[in-house]
Amino acid sequence: MRVLITGANGFVGRQLALQLLQHGSLCGRAIGALRLLDTDLTGFADDPRLRLHPGNITDAALIRRVLADGIDVVFHLVSVPGGAAEQDYAAGYQVNLLASLELLDQLRNTARPPVLVYASSIAVYGDALPARMDETALTQPQLSYGAHKLMVETALCDLARRGEVDGRALRLPGIVARPRQPNGLRSAFMSDLLHAFAAGEPYTCPVSPQATAWWMSARCCVNNLIHAAELCELPFDSQRVWQLPVLQLSMAQVIDALAARFGEAGRALISFAPDAHLQALFGAMPPLKSPRARAAGFCHDGNAAHLVRHALNLSAVRKPL
Amino acid sequence: MRVLITGANGFVGRQLALQLLQHGSLCGRAIGALRLLDTDLTGFADDPRLRLHPGNITDAALIRRVLADGIDVVFHLVSVPGGAAEQDYAAGYQVNLLASLELLDQLRNTARPPVLVYASSIAVYGDALPARMDETALTQPQLSYGAHKLMVETALCDLARRGEVDGRALRLPGIVARPRQPNGLRSAFMSDLLHAFAAGEPYTCPVSPQATAWWMSARCCVNNLIHAAELCELPFDSQRVWQLPVLQLSMAQVIDALAARFGEAGRALISFAPDAHLQALFGAMPPLKSPRARAAGFCHDGNAAHLVRHALNLSAVRKPL
Repeated sequence: MRVLITGANGFVGRQLALQLLQHGSLCGRAIGALRLLDTDLTGFADDPRLRLHPGNITDAALIRRVLADGIDVVFHLVSVPGGAAEQDYAAGYQVNLLASLELLDQLRNTARPPVLVYASSIAVYGDALPARMDETALTQPQLSYGAHKLMVETALCDLARRGEVDGRALRLPGIVARPRQPNGLRSAFMSDLLHAFAAGEPYTCPVSPQATAWWMSARCCVNNLIHAAELCELPFDSQRVWQLPVLQLSMAQVIDALAARFGEAGRALISFAPDAHLQALFGAMPPLKSPRARAAGFCHDGNAAHLVRHALNLSAVRKPL
Repeated sequence: MRVLITGANGFVGRQLALQLLQHGSLCGRAIGALRLLDTDLTGFADDPRLRLHPGNITDAALIRRVLADGIDVVFHLVSVPGGAAEQDYAAGYQVNLLASLELLDQLRNTARPPVLVYASSIAVYGDALPARMDETALTQPQLSYGAHKLMVETALCDLARRGEVDGRALRLPGIVARPRQPNGLRSAFMSDLLHAFAAGEPYTCPVSPQATAWWMSARCCVNNLIHAAELCELPFDSQRVWQLPVLQLSMAQVIDALAARFGEAGRALISFAPDAHLQALFGAMPPLKSPRARAAGFCHDGNAAHLVRHALNLSAVRKPL
């Protein structure tokens, strides 16, 4: 089993790589080679299965070299995040759109249709979400990031329909708890709150306690990505895009779970100074029904307590899907 | 007023160019330069306003030269048609997707946001149309042609939202009556029927008399394209994609209109040998409501008799919108 992760040094990519190496197999076959592509690949443990391909995904020749020996499963995670891509349009255009199209085009020209798991995003919907939302909601991206994700979804579905790439796209919500460093993500505050509370530090939340967002831990996200790769014998003409199930939680609910875990005293350190723009983007996420994704075996974290535990890596046991 | 037509030698492009030269102005300003881009530009009348740019739209340097002196309005019509693009995926990918993205990217880097009128297609919907259809119908392309049109729509909307390209996308139905020559269009039979009946020739129709399709004459289509360019002061954050109003007519209704115009005797020359694939693609088009497009001033041909007259160019008077 030959596997590739693009954006392997990202927050999700790194955990996915570790999980795959630890588990040792994918789709019931031993992983012989795990190829990692990212601009910086320092710090990965020495493992005979690892093949490091440092470089930029916008380098078509690099993609060609990575795929030269054949590939079975690709996890395409690399992206310029939403906030950063909105400010530097050209960077997002090159990475999020053109490089993804180039990767798809090279994959369609490989010998056997490889499995492609694509990390899409809830940014495809835009900010005018219906009060009751489900998997058939209209897409109307309000960020170039979301527009480009939607375009790649469309390309992926088309190549699946043609039987040329066995693509599966997952629309990811905000994934927590990312490292506390500038990352170009507008949803960074969701992670920052968790880290601050766990560390017993004061934190000023940029949305109100009543603000509802969609949450998923990185661990749960990785499990869903692996599950997407392992969906067997998916007909080429079947639906290829899933909105992942999410936990819709208010900040107050998350803080309750944090207080239950780390002590009530922490509450006093959290204050609120809502930012109108962030509140509009992330503060009014409606309930989301995703029966189709659940029927296909995709999961959310279960409840706020599990979300906190998974997000802060408080137990090492992989939660079975 | 500096205007560009890509695919200017196509069926619609040629009529649009003639109409613009004849009318002499666009958006209330005299047309100073009408730039035509197509692989073959022979046969255009000598006109001091014409600038011919023979070449392929996939040549980014050619686009750069065409836009070098500035541009006010672009009609982006060129495409590899649906049937042809499905067979030669790479040709459609290069022209319908990558060249369109390159054009958009060059337009966003011009001094003032130019108006871009994009000929999209009802192929974005796919073949699983709801029984009662309106402008909010889900898109699920079943041809690479439709997938690429949908992707370019998404890119156009994103650049409009950013205030960088003043884009307007129109979803066109089957346009009649195209010349009777192989053109890679699966809907070619719609035009062939009109030509055959008008010429008093026998014709075997590949769909049943009850088959319903969406019809529009080239004249009506050209009027809609011009109207799209002339929509004034459209806010950048407004909707930028319109499903054009269409005439939903059965083959029998079109034949009735042809018989009324050319004589009842012609009926005897029409036979039917339905092709299952064509019947599925074009034979069960549901009624289509498009109140938003109509409110914005877009039109269909009015009725079957007008469609026949417009399509076969039987009266030279431009029907006012």
